[in-house]
Amino acid sequence: MAEPRTLEALETPCLALDRGRVAANAARVARHLDALGVPLRLHVKTAKSPDVTALVLGGVKAPITVSTLREAEAFFDAGYRDILYAVGIDAHKLPRAQALLARGARLMLLLDGLPAARALAEYCRRTKVAFRVLIEVDTDGHRAGLASTDPQLPVIARTLQEAGCTVEGVLTHAGSSYQCGDADCLESVAARERDGALAAARALRAAGFSAPVVSIGSTPTALAARRLDGVTEVRAGVYVFFDLVMAGVGVCRIEDIALSVLATVIGAQPERGWTLIDAGWMALSRDRGTARQRLDQGYGVVCDLDGRPIGDLVVTETNQEHGIVARRGGGAAVPLPLGTRVRILPNHACATGAQHARYYVVDGDRTVQGCWERFAGW
Amino acid sequence: MAEPRTLEALETPCLALDRGRVAANAARVARHLDALGVPLRLHVKTAKSPDVTALVLGGVKAPITVSTLREAEAFFDAGYRDILYAVGIDAHKLPRAQALLARGARLMLLLDGLPAARALAEYCRRTKVAFRVLIEVDTDGHRAGLASTDPQLPVIARTLQEAGCTVEGVLTHAGSSYQCGDADCLESVAARERDGALAAARALRAAGFSAPVVSIGSTPTALAARRLDGVTEVRAGVYVFFDLVMAGVGVCRIEDIALSVLATVIGAQPERGWTLIDAGWMALSRDRGTARQRLDQGYGVVCDLDGRPIGDLVVTETNQEHGIVARRGGGAAVPLPLGTRVRILPNHACATGAQHARYYVVDGDRTVQGCWERFAGW
Repeated sequence: MAEPRTLEALETPCLALDRGRVAANAARVARHLDALGVPLRLHVKTAKSPDVTALVLGGVKAPITVSTLREAEAFFDAGYRDILYAVGIDAHKLPRAQALLARGARLMLLLDGLPAARALAEYCRRTKVAFRVLIEVDTDGHRAGLASTDPQLPVIARTLQEAGCTVEGVLTHAGSSYQCGDADCLESVAARERDGALAAARALRAAGFSAPVVSIGSTPTALAARRLDGVTEVRAGVYVFFDLVMAGVGVCRIEDIALSVLATVIGAQPERGWTLIDAGWMALSRDRGTARQRLDQGYGVVCDLDGRPIGDLVVTETNQEHGIVARRGGGAAVPLPLGTRVRILPNHACATGAQHARYYVVDGDRTVQGCWERFAGW
Repeated sequence: MAEPRTLEALETPCLALDRGRVAANAARVARHLDALGVPLRLHVKTAKSPDVTALVLGGVKAPITVSTLREAEAFFDAGYRDILYAVGIDAHKLPRAQALLARGARLMLLLDGLPAARALAEYCRRTKVAFRVLIEVDTDGHRAGLASTDPQLPVIARTLQEAGCTVEGVLTHAGSSYQCGDADCLESVAARERDGALAAARALRAAGFSAPVVSIGSTPTALAARRLDGVTEVRAGVYVFFDLVMAGVGVCRIEDIALSVLATVIGAQPERGWTLIDAGWMALSRDRGTARQRLDQGYGVVCDLDGRPIGDLVVTETNQEHGIVARRGGGAAVPLPLGTRVRILPNHACATGAQHARYYVVDGDRTVQGCWERFAGW
């Protein structure tokens, strides 16, 4: 039998994923939502990997959320049927959505206003296909959606209904929760997210539409919610890995972060207190999400091979294939000789994951248990 | 014969690449270096595409620079033989480099100090392989390399020579040129880059090493250099596409930028003056290189399908698959109805390109002439 591979034997840079941490993060959110009595609709855009999703959902082909049709197709092929495409869709993408319906997907689309509803209705009339649709509601002014009081809500629903489509309900995403730094902020954003979605659903129901679905969520608000009466599903994704931004928001600990970039020390500038690693922005991504937080983590926190942070070391700067490791705030040289292997915790797991084609799976130690593919593209 | 495809018919988001602009950018740098009498060693990390490189080099398999062994292997397979791997290499990657030598590559490695030289020498003694090596010199304090006056330079050369390796010379990269905003800064960084590299080469030669190669370059310094006597090759890469950062540095015009992300309007928030497009950071990258420049271009400049900027529209914010288009500095709603197609010029072509698997090739108009693959990974 071959010697089991270890993190010391992998070519760098690459992703190391701790499956025990993924499982613990999944269990925590599942417990929380169970207690609130609301089912999860996992967002699979973070991992883009049926293997990771199977671990998170315990093998159940539960409802999922996707950010691209490529995800919808890949997860349909992996056995998932109840799929919400949670990005507004242009008419040129509807034939692909239609093909998924024809194959048996329970696909739900999203739109953010009357022009989008009219375009979808026109397509449905022409092709005789009937989509299930959620209307996007804006509850924190950070992206798309209508105000929950917008008088167009029932007009949109009627436009779609007349074209044979079904308005299943409303969706909102309080993305501004990523800018929180304490529990008060999180609770208030979570309450606004819930209340706004419920108000929009009430407006649709008052106009005679059943609108059974009230879909809310983001990782921070999912975890901060104290009660979700009336909400029918919660979407969250990044919690499966967590990351430094989420730690800065206050919804996880550094020790919960399951994803890291394995890298090797390739040089040094001792007088500057710099060590160079072979993970630059190509491996780490250009995401600087912690730059706006209380604790700026540079391009990531430097850990040893067992995943423990090394003193106050962060990646302070990156080129395409070089990362510069230094002490947070500067100071003495870094004790990492040439050839040392490190693991870098990412600012934003979605962005860092997207730079790679696979995960090397570990479980609390350095033994590589397997390799899980992830896909990319649209 | 099938109707030629146009940019209106592509699924978005995707990359649109103007081959005429690539050819013009390539010709400009070739003319400049010809006048200075120094050959180009093209950096292929920007495009990661033998098709693009063939266009830039006119089909000649000229010397190239790579940032990963994956690039070295892919370009070797495409017929390139003279390959410089311009990132410090850890011992665990040497077997792959050795395999390229064995296949006939004229591969050159880079190292930045005595520890790296000792590690390489140890490998070469053990495996009886002889690498050609450049020593990295730091001429602007921005990344790796020894000072050009460092007394270790000949010690490193001796260490390598005793292990059977050849020290071909020195390499420097004045990456700080990216922070310039005027011609004076560029000329001064370019002069320091050249003078530092020449000084290091002289130090090696004074110690008895022939060190024939003096390799310098970055796109800004390559274009700013007034004379390069003694320099034997110039490396540059991003100029093949150019980008908004390079425009901000002052080495290209907006009209020279060959790469854009094709996107579709998927929604709006008229009261906020926002239009939503289906290109978020996944399609554009998280690069915010213009944030530090005089003119912050957000996540990119919004152009029409013919590649002309639309008023003062930029992508002001991104989520994973959403981009928010607004006027620079805020203001009235944007005249882009649902379904409108736009092209976004990138901050940093290397980073934006890396988010995609292919280029759709146009030439001054909307007709798609072909599709060129690009590769990823290490």
